[in-house]
Amino acid sequence: MAIITLLTDFGTADTYVGQMKGAILSVAPSCALVDLTHAVPAQDVQAGAFLLWTAVTAFPAGSIHLAVVDPGVGSARHAIAVQTQRGDYLVGPDNGLLVPAAERLGGIVTAVALPTPPAASTTFHGRDVFAPAAARLATGVSLGDLGAPAENLVNLSFPMTGEDGGEVIHVDTYGNLITNVPGDGLAKDTLVKVGDVAVPLVGYYAQAKPGSLLALVGSAGLLEISVRDGSAADRLRAQRGTRVTLSRRRPRE
Amino acid sequence: MAIITLLTDFGTADTYVGQMKGAILSVAPSCALVDLTHAVPAQDVQAGAFLLWTAVTAFPAGSIHLAVVDPGVGSARHAIAVQTQRGDYLVGPDNGLLVPAAERLGGIVTAVALPTPPAASTTFHGRDVFAPAAARLATGVSLGDLGAPAENLVNLSFPMTGEDGGEVIHVDTYGNLITNVPGDGLAKDTLVKVGDVAVPLVGYYAQAKPGSLLALVGSAGLLEISVRDGSAADRLRAQRGTRVTLSRRRPRE
Amino acid sequence: MAIITLLTDFGTADTYVGQMKGAILSVAPSCALVDLTHAVPAQDVQAGAFLLWTAVTAFPAGSIHLAVVDPGVGSARHAIAVQTQRGDYLVGPDNGLLVPAAERLGGIVTAVALPTPPAASTTFHGRDVFAPAAARLATGVSLGDLGAPAENLVNLSFPMTGEDGGEVIHVDTYGNLITNVPGDGLAKDTLVKVGDVAVPLVGYYAQAKPGSLLALVGSAGLLEISVRDGSAADRLRAQRGTRVTLSRRRPRE
Repeated sequence: MAIITLLTDFGTADTYVGQMKGAILSVAPSCALVDLTHAVPAQDVQAGAFLLWTAVTAFPAGSIHLAVVDPGVGSARHAIAVQTQRGDYLVGPDNGLLVPAAERLGGIVTAVALPTPPAASTTFHGRDVFAPAAARLATGVSLGDLGAPAENLVNLSFPMTGEDGGEVIHVDTYGNLITNVPGDGLAKDTLVKVGDVAVPLVGYYAQAKPGSLLALVGSAGLLEISVRDGSAADRLRAQRGTRVTLSRRRPRE
Repeated sequence: MAIITLLTDFGTADTYVGQMKGAILSVAPSCALVDLTHAVPAQDVQAGAFLLWTAVTAFPAGSIHLAVVDPGVGSARHAIAVQTQRGDYLVGPDNGLLVPAAERLGGIVTAVALPTPPAASTTFHGRDVFAPAAARLATGVSLGDLGAPAENLVNLSFPMTGEDGGEVIHVDTYGNLITNVPGDGLAKDTLVKVGDVAVPLVGYYAQAKPGSLLALVGSAGLLEISVRDGSAADRLRAQRGTRVTLSRRRPRE
Repeated sequence: MAIITLLTDFGTADTYVGQMKGAILSVAPSCALVDLTHAVPAQDVQAGAFLLWTAVTAFPAGSIHLAVVDPGVGSARHAIAVQTQRGDYLVGPDNGLLVPAAERLGGIVTAVALPTPPAASTTFHGRDVFAPAAARLATGVSLGDLGAPAENLVNLSFPMTGEDGGEVIHVDTYGNLITNVPGDGLAKDTLVKVGDVAVPLVGYYAQAKPGSLLALVGSAGLLEISVRDGSAADRLRAQRGTRVTLSRRRPRE
């Protein structure tokens, strides 16, 4: 059974996500539908791209990820579907939203531009363009049959710095600060600072006392800054873009 | 695989929706369950009816729509299931909630009153009456086998005005104002006003400058008023019931 | 088709729940996934245990309930999976979260400790430990094959008082006060009081006037205090832990 995930900035107070699922099930009645999140901040492509990036590797190769954060809907921006090296499919607007996730899945192998059906609305391509395309992939239609090859896709990638620091790229529900610093190869004696505040690097939450600040390598493989049983965002008044600096303890001579 | 959609005012902080799904899967283990929304304002039948109306045509004919906004639960109001001209089923309380959606699907062909099982709670017919009925339809039980014919259903419909205007019937997550004015046949030179504010009619969002007001025919086929990359509800201090007036530009003589 | 339910304190603004579902579908592609709620207050094991308790009996015997409210993640607390008398499975941390639900399903028959896979993150056992275990149960793996027998589980149970009262153990979305007083055998002439306020006991909401206080036996089989078309929590300034007293009307001599 094909898996289609959905990520949007539509919220769940309206029926927009439900309508997309209806459009999918009209074409592919037996696929598994999984919500990634619908709480991407409105029209925030960068935030949507990060959230999509966090999730895709948890799904089996060959999954179809449908993502819609689309300030340009109805304009000349392309609708695209891409296949990744790992064999997954990503469907959404050509505004960079899909790019970091595609890179995490080995990069884009093929990309096509999706035509707009004559009966499509001008405001809701999630339902009228993207959902039907994802559904057709779920039924076994090949990517090349969905549209003409697309080139010069709009780019968007996260600056993955590491040597001397990085920045907060996401604040999660708990107030954890997820940075763009890869945890791979982060030395155990690294000094982590947010502004003037030093944050001890630990292996897991329970190594810190309740209420205290800590840094660790989180579930996305990135350096995260947390308060045990609390909110690091509140404690440090930090937000997306807040700078995080790294240094090595000097060995005493 | 039968599709059952769910729309309620139960929110998602409790397990009420999950319990309904458990009751459905106990009877119909292999149906596809799709949430339309559970954020209908508490006990607001009119709002629930509109949201259900927005969603049903996105689903294939024969789908089963289970909707519960039910201030009268436990009283003498009937529980009903209806079949529409298009072949869909709607299950919920007889308080008008299902009527606009049914009209959009061609109107009600048959309606039955659902008996209350002896073991049903008095407060949660969503789980104890409506969910089992929807599930039985999903397994192929015919509508007539669910209960005795129901007549004189409670009515509720949206005044679909058009000539000289209408009103806001829903404010969505983005602050878009959805009106009850059908987009069909709306002349391109129509003048749209909310109070004293004239709102230019466009074909799609990107035709307006960021931050500016616009009116267009939205994805439900209704006239909507938006702010590009912003909230029309905030800008115009508008809400459900706010009047929208239409006029034609006078040809110069 | 196996049913796996999910209950967490992860919220829905991140992709954590989606990642758990990806991990499940990677192992068990055709199970039915049902969200119970993801709005358990952060790290509130008692609240999570209650919400899980409310939902499990609505699902068919043999269902798999995956619950993660896990302040101790990454520490020495055990991950467990248990089988109940009724034949259901519960998977989650050994912190008491699963115990009241298991008791409602007839009690725990077998319990095993789940090993932590070498590649597991230290912060997200929901995805890396619990989800794969639940998925393996869904594919027919027996409980005993998931880990070594676990003993001396951490306990947690609700004090189910009744004779002279109890307390509020949950405030739901509507502001209903759910108490720990079982509705079974509650005499119809019981006097219910919250502080000094007497609350009339009724059979269903519509027996009270709009805006008035009422007590009834709710859908979980527990005494609940409500305001018809309003919030009892607001009206009575009540919260979890607020005392509710019961007495019998004295027969006039």
